[in-house]
Amino acid sequence: MTLSAENGTQNYKMTKRFLNIAKTLKPKLIHSNVRKTFSNQVLKTSEPFVVDFYNHYTGYVSLDFDFVGSPVDAPILLKIKFCEHKDELKENSDDYHGWVSKSWIQEELIHIDNLPSTLKLKRRYAFRYISVELIASSSRYDVLLNGIELDSVSSVGNFDEIVGDTELEKRIDVVALRTLHECMQYEFEDGPKRDRRLWLGDLRLQALTNYHTYKNYDLVKRCLYLFAGTTDKNGRIAPCVFTSPKVIADDSFIFDYSLLFASTLKDYYENAHDEKTLQDLLPVATKQIMNARGYFVNDVLADKNELGWCFLDWNLSLNRQCGEHAVYIYAEKDLISLYKEIGLSTDELEIDLKNKIKAGFDAFFDKKLGVFVSGEAKQISFASNVWMILANDFSEEENRKIFENLDRLNPEPMVTPYMYHHYIEALIKSGLLDKARKKMNEYWGAMIDDDADTFYELFNPMNKEESPYGGKAVLSYCHAWSCTPSYLLRHYFLKK
Amino acid sequence: MTLSAENGTQNYKMTKRFLNIAKTLKPKLIHSNVRKTFSNQVLKTSEPFVVDFYNHYTGYVSLDFDFVGSPVDAPILLKIKFCEHKDELKENSDDYHGWVSKSWIQEELIHIDNLPSTLKLKRRYAFRYISVELIASSSRYDVLLNGIELDSVSSVGNFDEIVGDTELEKRIDVVALRTLHECMQYEFEDGPKRDRRLWLGDLRLQALTNYHTYKNYDLVKRCLYLFAGTTDKNGRIAPCVFTSPKVIADDSFIFDYSLLFASTLKDYYENAHDEKTLQDLLPVATKQIMNARGYFVNDVLADKNELGWCFLDWNLSLNRQCGEHAVYIYAEKDLISLYKEIGLSTDELEIDLKNKIKAGFDAFFDKKLGVFVSGEAKQISFASNVWMILANDFSEEENRKIFENLDRLNPEPMVTPYMYHHYIEALIKSGLLDKARKKMNEYWGAMIDDDADTFYELFNPMNKEESPYGGKAVLSYCHAWSCTPSYLLRHYFLKK
Repeated sequence: MTLSAENGTQNYKMTKRFLNIAKTLKPKLIHSNVRKTFSNQVLKTSEPFVVDFYNHYTGYVSLDFDFVGSPVDAPILLKIKFCEHKDELKENSDDYHGWVSKSWIQEELIHIDNLPSTLKLKRRYAFRYISVELIASSSRYDVLLNGIELDSVSSVGNFDEIVGDTELEKRIDVVALRTLHECMQYEFEDGPKRDRRLWLGDLRLQALTNYHTYKNYDLVKRCLYLFAGTTDKNGRIAPCVFTSPKVIADDSFIFDYSLLFASTLKDYYENAHDEKTLQDLLPVATKQIMNARGYFVNDVLADKNELGWCFLDWNLSLNRQCGEHAVYIYAEKDLISLYKEIGLSTDELEIDLKNKIKAGFDAFFDKKLGVFVSGEAKQISFASNVWMILANDFSEEENRKIFENLDRLNPEPMVTPYMYHHYIEALIKSGLLDKARKKMNEYWGAMIDDDADTFYELFNPMNKEESPYGGKAVLSYCHAWSCTPSYLLRHYFLKK
Repeated sequence: MTLSAENGTQNYKMTKRFLNIAKTLKPKLIHSNVRKTFSNQVLKTSEPFVVDFYNHYTGYVSLDFDFVGSPVDAPILLKIKFCEHKDELKENSDDYHGWVSKSWIQEELIHIDNLPSTLKLKRRYAFRYISVELIASSSRYDVLLNGIELDSVSSVGNFDEIVGDTELEKRIDVVALRTLHECMQYEFEDGPKRDRRLWLGDLRLQALTNYHTYKNYDLVKRCLYLFAGTTDKNGRIAPCVFTSPKVIADDSFIFDYSLLFASTLKDYYENAHDEKTLQDLLPVATKQIMNARGYFVNDVLADKNELGWCFLDWNLSLNRQCGEHAVYIYAEKDLISLYKEIGLSTDELEIDLKNKIKAGFDAFFDKKLGVFVSGEAKQISFASNVWMILANDFSEEENRKIFENLDRLNPEPMVTPYMYHHYIEALIKSGLLDKARKKMNEYWGAMIDDDADTFYELFNPMNKEESPYGGKAVLSYCHAWSCTPSYLLRHYFLKK
């Protein structure tokens, strides 16, 4: 999809202006350098030499090679692998046959014709470990690795005000802050290893955490304008936007992500108090709600339950009908509050909201079981109930009752920190602050126990081998949507 | 081995002056560009797309990639393979386990992060075919190869005066000239695929052919000074010299190659009439003869028959004692003729020569069989007899008798065009001009039948799968020492 090609003139002009605003907000990246030096480190074939940088970095790498022995009478063939997590060191990329492209595996085969030589790799990598393996060379000399120079990048510097009441909470905060730091580049990226781009679902949680920590309002603003500037001919916001080699929206659509543009805008306005941006983007947010209405029948969201069309979580068995209905309510409420902020009439929105709330409750609440169910099979899941609790204004007691019932019913589990975040928020909304905090410490703490330097895209404490992609080699171990403990701690748990 | 480190001051100064002369003679390479364009060429995984350039080229390559479909949501992983000969297209580099480094295989695995993109490969390749294979990408778009830009290099332009009395001879001349053209870079290289550097044995034959064709005397001069400027502390010339990243001689030694420096200098002087260079380099040539004497016992070369210490041919079973003894005589004669050119006394050299000729004949000529034999096992080979014929001044009839006897005795065969060249010269010296020409047409003609665009490093018509390296994937199909038909045709066969 290219910009403007299918857009009307009116739409195109608006788009252009939005993208120009986004462009002026493109940050200058902050570089910091780390140098590792080795003395006479001989590389041996089939014995990878692993360099540990003791933290997660995102950036560019140069390696200095030299030799001892006879002249270099044949090129050097090296395999250089970048790993965010120690588990990736064990992965053999030949064994990966999943549906997400193996081209995401951060592994290069490189020829060097002469030594000494500085190999300056052009691509950006995300890693804690670099594994350097000599695949082939002549037997007449030894290849030496003398040093590695890392030029790491982020749009923010380090944030040092660590919070937490326990050592574990402090460690969780450190790791969550690092996760966000690494994902804050020219845009908020979902993950610096994969997919390395701006996704709306991730942006909302990154922005929330950012308001309490790095406070880079301009980067959020830039991302909001990038989404608003690349809507399709129907005004729909794409779930993700590419910015290199040029700005282009993805030609896919994710129902819940597009709706949450309204919520992301509301959070931005509440924190940045930037009325100009609100004025610009409110019509775009409104358009998402209006477009979504087309998928409702008698105010109940139709069961278009395809992963790809809607998300909520990476649990592949999840029925998404009820949860998506709830996200609509959640987003429309945020839209209404923005309308009120600038004195626009909310009558039509409130009537619609009321209908959707009632119809949703009637359609999805199973009175016998006391929980929300979803789809023809009436599936019971955390996702449906968490989002219904977040979307509605039940009493704390009613919410707690839902959770109590849910715990007895073996619900479909949550597998992403993204879904876990909403679960924690729903517990808090149910007055279960201690339980919420305990759950946060358990879930994110289990990643700490797994030696996380940054939090993962996916973590199922019950099955650490889980991957929706058909293999773990492509997993992102530094993923934006998992950074929220730094928000949860500051916004809820440590509130004075 | 670094220059000067082990050299005395006197030697070092000389060395420095020689290398400065070599430096001033470094040629400016001639570039010529070829562009291939494709329309909507979709790359499919596991279906290599092979581009045929219809001739051998040495140079730098850029590839233009684009896409159709959804935005490029994952990097592209490509395997790009460069092949001089169609046989290489079938080779799987994973199957190569020979002792010459697999790093010579011209194959790259490359990630491209964004499309459209021009991939400018930094290394120089030698090839007729480029195979481009998509290893991995996302399924949401097709990868297109739009074009390949080739920037080919040589220190000489094309030589168009093709000779030969038959279509086959003309084709042999074209291919031999192309072989030499491709090997004439900043130095005379042995092969632009492998080893991509200056070897003394190859230089001698390249220079001979060059005098009758491209006539680039300066490039020969530069190479002579490079060898003379990088002798070791004993004044020994190395068999090969590296010039990148800096000028450095190999720390190995090949007996026959070092001796043939005298012959290479003689050929150069005869063709370029450059007395200054002769004056400079005659002491270096003399030193090789003097050093060689240390390996003789009672004027017979000791049987230090190790491949690596002496060469003659790539036949791994060959005993080299007799052939190497002959090379000494051959080189000493050339040295004597150079001494005479500038009026130096040759008395000592002539006495030594006479002794070596007599002792060699006595030691190696088997009177009963009527051929030269070599080593303790009295091995009968082409190499021993060819070199003895070239070194001595037997009558044409005596030479023919040796060849007749040899043909009956199932001698160790020749496997390189290098050895074949000397065989042809020995036939000519035996008055067998027609047979020599027939053999040339048969041997080099068989490579033409094998679809050669350039002549090979190695060719055994009896066993096309032969490789001294433990596998064919690393073979050089454009190798300098096989360019001599263009010399043989002009110097002997088509002489007016």
